[in-house]
Amino acid sequence: MNIGIVGIGCMGSSLARDFIAAGFTRPHICDTNSVFLKDAEALGLGQSYTADLTVLAAKSDIVFICAPVMAIPAIIRTLAPAMKAGGIITDVGSVKTFILDVVEGDLPENIHYIPAHPVTFGTIGTGPQSGREGVFKGRKFIITPRETTNRTAVETVAHLACTIGANVVEMPPEQHDRILGFTSHLSHVIAFSAMRAADNLSNALGENVVDYAGGSFKDMTRVAASDARMWRDIFLCNRAQIKDGFDVMLTEMQALNTLMQNGDEKELEDFITEASNRRKTCFERE
Amino acid sequence: MNIGIVGIGCMGSSLARDFIAAGFTRPHICDTNSVFLKDAEALGLGQSYTADLTVLAAKSDIVFICAPVMAIPAIIRTLAPAMKAGGIITDVGSVKTFILDVVEGDLPENIHYIPAHPVTFGTIGTGPQSGREGVFKGRKFIITPRETTNRTAVETVAHLACTIGANVVEMPPEQHDRILGFTSHLSHVIAFSAMRAADNLSNALGENVVDYAGGSFKDMTRVAASDARMWRDIFLCNRAQIKDGFDVMLTEMQALNTLMQNGDEKELEDFITEASNRRKTCFERE
Repeated sequence: MNIGIVGIGCMGSSLARDFIAAGFTRPHICDTNSVFLKDAEALGLGQSYTADLTVLAAKSDIVFICAPVMAIPAIIRTLAPAMKAGGIITDVGSVKTFILDVVEGDLPENIHYIPAHPVTFGTIGTGPQSGREGVFKGRKFIITPRETTNRTAVETVAHLACTIGANVVEMPPEQHDRILGFTSHLSHVIAFSAMRAADNLSNALGENVVDYAGGSFKDMTRVAASDARMWRDIFLCNRAQIKDGFDVMLTEMQALNTLMQNGDEKELEDFITEASNRRKTCFERE
Repeated sequence: MNIGIVGIGCMGSSLARDFIAAGFTRPHICDTNSVFLKDAEALGLGQSYTADLTVLAAKSDIVFICAPVMAIPAIIRTLAPAMKAGGIITDVGSVKTFILDVVEGDLPENIHYIPAHPVTFGTIGTGPQSGREGVFKGRKFIITPRETTNRTAVETVAHLACTIGANVVEMPPEQHDRILGFTSHLSHVIAFSAMRAADNLSNALGENVVDYAGGSFKDMTRVAASDARMWRDIFLCNRAQIKDGFDVMLTEMQALNTLMQNGDEKELEDFITEASNRRKTCFERE
């Protein structure tokens, strides 16, 4: 099977590394950044390198698009007509309904778009050097087909995800966007906001407050170092779902603050105990 | 110098380990938890073990109180009359004005209380096994004297902190509480709130949303596994300062959400870029 990868940054190069490690022929690689292409070649990640989506499409049975969410619909539209019949296009974007809404009903009949989202680390590196082997192992790989999506193509994507050790799950795209709008996107909203709040407070107190940050602030803001363009896109494409999670989060923050300000010892301790118990049990070893 | 440690949990046992490693005689240890005392003895952390504060006080030239913030004033009041003239009492509590307000003017004239706060990791373990050697190395050790505080006693505490590799800084207690109310306490408010928000959302969506959490949510909520009683105390003792940081944080979160909901691409990207650049430069390698 000829695999194509569009976008050889952190995610794309991690996929390339894992497919090679799993025994597949090295992927065809497409990127509009010529430095990334040269770096990918130096790392031996591909069997061909091009900046032309149609060149990649003609060579590939399945293409993984590893690009910012907003760019994905246009990339799908360019790839699709250039692929062979039965060709599969999938992606790793963090928002699914946005892409489906744009491209559905707009593809050739024998070309299948399978929306997917591997849930991994919060990437902070850029370029093909920043990828790592094994990042999909044991992680959720969410596929979000519609009822009309071609099942054979879904199974092909699921099979590839299994070969790199991912844990494949299927859910409706709307459910995916609600869940990830909270677990991933809102965490980024908080991280970015905390860095700006730190700056404002540093100005007010005449002291750089982050110099006194312990592990809790560093952990909370780690993903604030993420790529701005990528996150702007995710925020814009999933804004309604993020708002739902934002409102739930705000309600809890305000409830906790009210208990604190009112000095309500018992209820405050109950709130924290419940949260603490949940955190201790919900993730293994992390 | 005879060092005493009250409270042989994560912080107290880390201090004991570091003082031993720095060549001091093993500390005298006091804890009201008999299991902790036995465990500390099994680990060889002390030269004597007692549940009686006055017994510890009589043997110690300096006592480090490693107990929940709310318990500290009463412990100081019990220790002080039992110590030899010139004796020093210090602590590692995350809130400083609360303690000073209670004990100032209430101590024998020749006994000195030096408020201190080593900023380390977010502890999640309990008991003497959970401590580690070297956790103070390169970390801020904040001493928050009043203008009337005995300088010789301040220097003694600063010297001890230096011997375990900490980076000693002095600031007024009010400034400490404002800064830490944001960098540490508010991060915990957010972590606890996020776990409760996750539960509410899981109920609403019929799916355990934390099963789909990537690195960002795990990082943000790591400290939610902290001890409930300890954090209830910190929240109650520093509520006014936490509220200031809370309001600044809320303003930024709401500003970011508004830019997102309004689809204000340029300003949204600027907001994120600024946050991202700050995060990349403000911590070395973390």
